[in-house]
Amino acid sequence: MGEKNRKRLAIVVQGGTLDKLYCAFILASTAVAMDMEAHLYFTFWGLNMLVKGAMAKAGLPATYKHMEAQMRKNLEKMKYPTPYDMLKRLKQSGLFKTYACSPTMEMFGVKREDLIPEVDEIAGAATFLEIAAEADITLFI
Amino acid sequence: MGEKNRKRLAIVVQGGTLDKLYCAFILASTAVAMDMEAHLYFTFWGLNMLVKGAMAKAGLPATYKHMEAQMRKNLEKMKYPTPYDMLKRLKQSGLFKTYACSPTMEMFGVKREDLIPEVDEIAGAATFLEIAAEADITLFI
Amino acid sequence: MGEKNRKRLAIVVQGGTLDKLYCAFILASTAVAMDMEAHLYFTFWGLNMLVKGAMAKAGLPATYKHMEAQMRKNLEKMKYPTPYDMLKRLKQSGLFKTYACSPTMEMFGVKREDLIPEVDEIAGAATFLEIAAEADITLFI
Repeated sequence: MGEKNRKRLAIVVQGGTLDKLYCAFILASTAVAMDMEAHLYFTFWGLNMLVKGAMAKAGLPATYKHMEAQMRKNLEKMKYPTPYDMLKRLKQSGLFKTYACSPTMEMFGVKREDLIPEVDEIAGAATFLEIAAEADITLFI
Repeated sequence: MGEKNRKRLAIVVQGGTLDKLYCAFILASTAVAMDMEAHLYFTFWGLNMLVKGAMAKAGLPATYKHMEAQMRKNLEKMKYPTPYDMLKRLKQSGLFKTYACSPTMEMFGVKREDLIPEVDEIAGAATFLEIAAEADITLFI
Repeated sequence: MGEKNRKRLAIVVQGGTLDKLYCAFILASTAVAMDMEAHLYFTFWGLNMLVKGAMAKAGLPATYKHMEAQMRKNLEKMKYPTPYDMLKRLKQSGLFKTYACSPTMEMFGVKREDLIPEVDEIAGAATFLEIAAEADITLFI
């Protein structure tokens, strides 16, 4: 991390649905496989997914709910990893960092001990902006 | 504004829900506090939130509607400013600019006199792309 | 494409609703009119919109469904092009490229022959990240 010439991906994960989590983790997994850094800042519904046990219950948003059964069936057939499995693998890369948004935690009454142990840092938006200002790719998911 | 070595945040605010408005304004407020420029281009549902009186009625999206009562209660307990209060404070920074998307205004029959006075400029996508091309962080919320 | 000093816009199109498609295509159309490259990587619900006949059926998301009748009426009055018309015009610019996300195709059982002929490339996330890392503006819609 922090190597000068390494490319960097910085994502705000605001959504807390299965499709948004997969988008964030697939992009991050691909980035670290390409020797890029991946920084994921979880806020709002994304932050709520860092609560222990929450990610396993993630579903599709209202607009796409009717696609959920087909999607789950195909994921199972593909033996696709769950979002939480992907997060745990990402942690092993040494190029990945997870941030939990502190104002959101207060807004939703989430405490540090409620969060999964894979969270690296509880931080405000300033931390994200500093990292993102030096990133090559910035996304809000 | 426009100082050569100042960092810049450029956001398309497309969503018109309370969570998306807070994300945009919290990021912008944090940016100006760090002496960065913040440019917010409001389009579609975001543009509709620039109509007088609209922002006060913003709620949560369908997928997260069941979290609204808890969130509002906590915001009140925290004495958290409303989105419109945050916009008005941002205006005082001298580092913040609000753009209203002109094609969206035609699409939804919104007139200049319908908009809150805090809007700096009515502009098309070219204006946003020019600003964003020189930004350090670009997001679509 | 690929000219060294040309600015570049790179978008992940994840949403599959009418408003998100318009945002992506309006930004891309404006970009190419400004002599910028525009690269659109369609994934999840966006990818599903590249299936033949799908784009014509795109509607608004659950949260904004009540605005659909008014929006369609105004678009008709403005003689606004459909998303698919915009995509076809973009193809003629020589500055625009459409990518279909291969993992999503497997997740939703979409085959190459199901896709509209305007798709330039079926590709994984690594292709998008390589293009986006050299872009001036990166967005997730």
